[in-house]
Amino acid sequence: MTQPYEQVSQWLQSYQAELMAMLEQEDGKQTFTPDTWSYDDVVQSDASEHKKPQGGGKTCVLRDGKIFESAGVNFSAIGGASLPKAATNKRQELADKPFKATGVSTVVHPDNPMVPTCHANFRLLTVGDNIWWFGGGFDLTPFYGFDEDCVLWHQAAKAACDRYGEAIYPRFKKWCDDYFYLPHRQEQRGIGGLFFDDLNDWPFEQCFACVQDVAKAFLQAYQAIVQRRKCLAFTPEQKQFQLLRRGRYVEFNLLYDRGTLFGLQSHGRTESILMSLPANVQWTYNYRPVPGSEEEKLLTHFLRPQDWASCD
Amino acid sequence: MTQPYEQVSQWLQSYQAELMAMLEQEDGKQTFTPDTWSYDDVVQSDASEHKKPQGGGKTCVLRDGKIFESAGVNFSAIGGASLPKAATNKRQELADKPFKATGVSTVVHPDNPMVPTCHANFRLLTVGDNIWWFGGGFDLTPFYGFDEDCVLWHQAAKAACDRYGEAIYPRFKKWCDDYFYLPHRQEQRGIGGLFFDDLNDWPFEQCFACVQDVAKAFLQAYQAIVQRRKCLAFTPEQKQFQLLRRGRYVEFNLLYDRGTLFGLQSHGRTESILMSLPANVQWTYNYRPVPGSEEEKLLTHFLRPQDWASCD
Repeated sequence: MTQPYEQVSQWLQSYQAELMAMLEQEDGKQTFTPDTWSYDDVVQSDASEHKKPQGGGKTCVLRDGKIFESAGVNFSAIGGASLPKAATNKRQELADKPFKATGVSTVVHPDNPMVPTCHANFRLLTVGDNIWWFGGGFDLTPFYGFDEDCVLWHQAAKAACDRYGEAIYPRFKKWCDDYFYLPHRQEQRGIGGLFFDDLNDWPFEQCFACVQDVAKAFLQAYQAIVQRRKCLAFTPEQKQFQLLRRGRYVEFNLLYDRGTLFGLQSHGRTESILMSLPANVQWTYNYRPVPGSEEEKLLTHFLRPQDWASCD
Repeated sequence: MTQPYEQVSQWLQSYQAELMAMLEQEDGKQTFTPDTWSYDDVVQSDASEHKKPQGGGKTCVLRDGKIFESAGVNFSAIGGASLPKAATNKRQELADKPFKATGVSTVVHPDNPMVPTCHANFRLLTVGDNIWWFGGGFDLTPFYGFDEDCVLWHQAAKAACDRYGEAIYPRFKKWCDDYFYLPHRQEQRGIGGLFFDDLNDWPFEQCFACVQDVAKAFLQAYQAIVQRRKCLAFTPEQKQFQLLRRGRYVEFNLLYDRGTLFGLQSHGRTESILMSLPANVQWTYNYRPVPGSEEEKLLTHFLRPQDWASCD
């Protein structure tokens, strides 16, 4: 698996650069600051020698932009002598075998509450010489919703998936809705998108092509939505609503997100994992939106799983 | 246990009122808004009928005070047909038996970063007719530390415990240091205090007296520290450091705090549980304090478990 792994890792690095170039172009003010790190430099006093991860990554962060309050794009290529149990749902017999993992993850927190927050992640995991699977997906978290943006987002997701079979989009879309749910709020995190793991149903080249198509669809769809919304005016009250909703984002990531919890438990690099958290967040006791308001519509209309791709 | 339970529940309600009166007096601007709630009014679609909690509470919140940015003091008296497994460390044979629990918890987030954040919790749990134990404690989270405040805090804790035996303070102090630790940051949450659970070593009246003494020590010690620090000047940079440190508080509560996780998992009232989160929080990528600064000293001096009670 060395050659295909290297091929994916190379593509992920060029994709990271492409994603940052797009975000810098849309922001028009700030650029990303890269931070190249290695596990050799990370103090991991709590991890036993056998369980220490190896490898490293490049964490790139943009702060205080004109459009983006904060954005992170993280590349990593890590490995270890012992695959953590939590790394695979399906294949518990692989736990404790040597593994390699390479991926890109991004979270973008816009300043303007009319522009939605986005998250995406694309990764390859290999175990031993012959076993591999892809995982990843992308999802959108609006504060003020627009039906046509939800339609664009899900149609882009569907178009990328349909090349690989009509059953793919419905499966990955439902997986995303099921995953990004906060039981203690009885709320979805956002309007969904795609989520997949253990992807090795087809030959390697075909799975890799699917991941590349999905990644490209994410970049183009998010750029289109940013362009539509970034010049809209907003009030201080709308900004405050965004800060409160970001509290839900933090709650999801720290209470439920498997990547975050797995990363922290397996002695991953904390700053690269928690790069997903927003710069500014608020909590207030028992906030309830005004009946009939746009804030209420976010909950009653947008954050309800639905068949956006079929809307016209 | 009906009569002793009612006795504790009554005392907790008067203690809640006393605590709020103290905080209102120190704030001098805002007062607490009470919110009386019952599980009968909470939608719990995810909970099976058997596992639904019963009872309710009074959640009191103060916001945007002169001294306190946010403060919550929560009383609750709940019960259920089936004690959740996570509710007891020692006594797994009690899981699934009928239980009652009553407690007060408080978290205070001052505006001024020279005033520390505090947390306290005092509770009684009863199972069936004859089994009971107390739990609780208090701990302090400074942003800018003062040795004499740490000494006052721990001497107050020690004095309250010493009436019940010299071994109590060292045991509850270590329990607190061990509990309020963030492994992914390799940091303590604060300078500690007391933490205890499963307290039924003595007759009921003596255990209850100990809890009352500890609760009184908390109230007096925190008031003394607030009075010492609330008029100190602070800079915008110091305020920002406080907001970043509050991020650690959120991380602890959502990643590790057993009361929070147990409460959310057992379909507790989300708004009363997450009342502990600060109003305003910030995260920034890879913040490092300036060497030799007060911000660094927080980490290198204050957030290191030590024998504060023996200092002079």
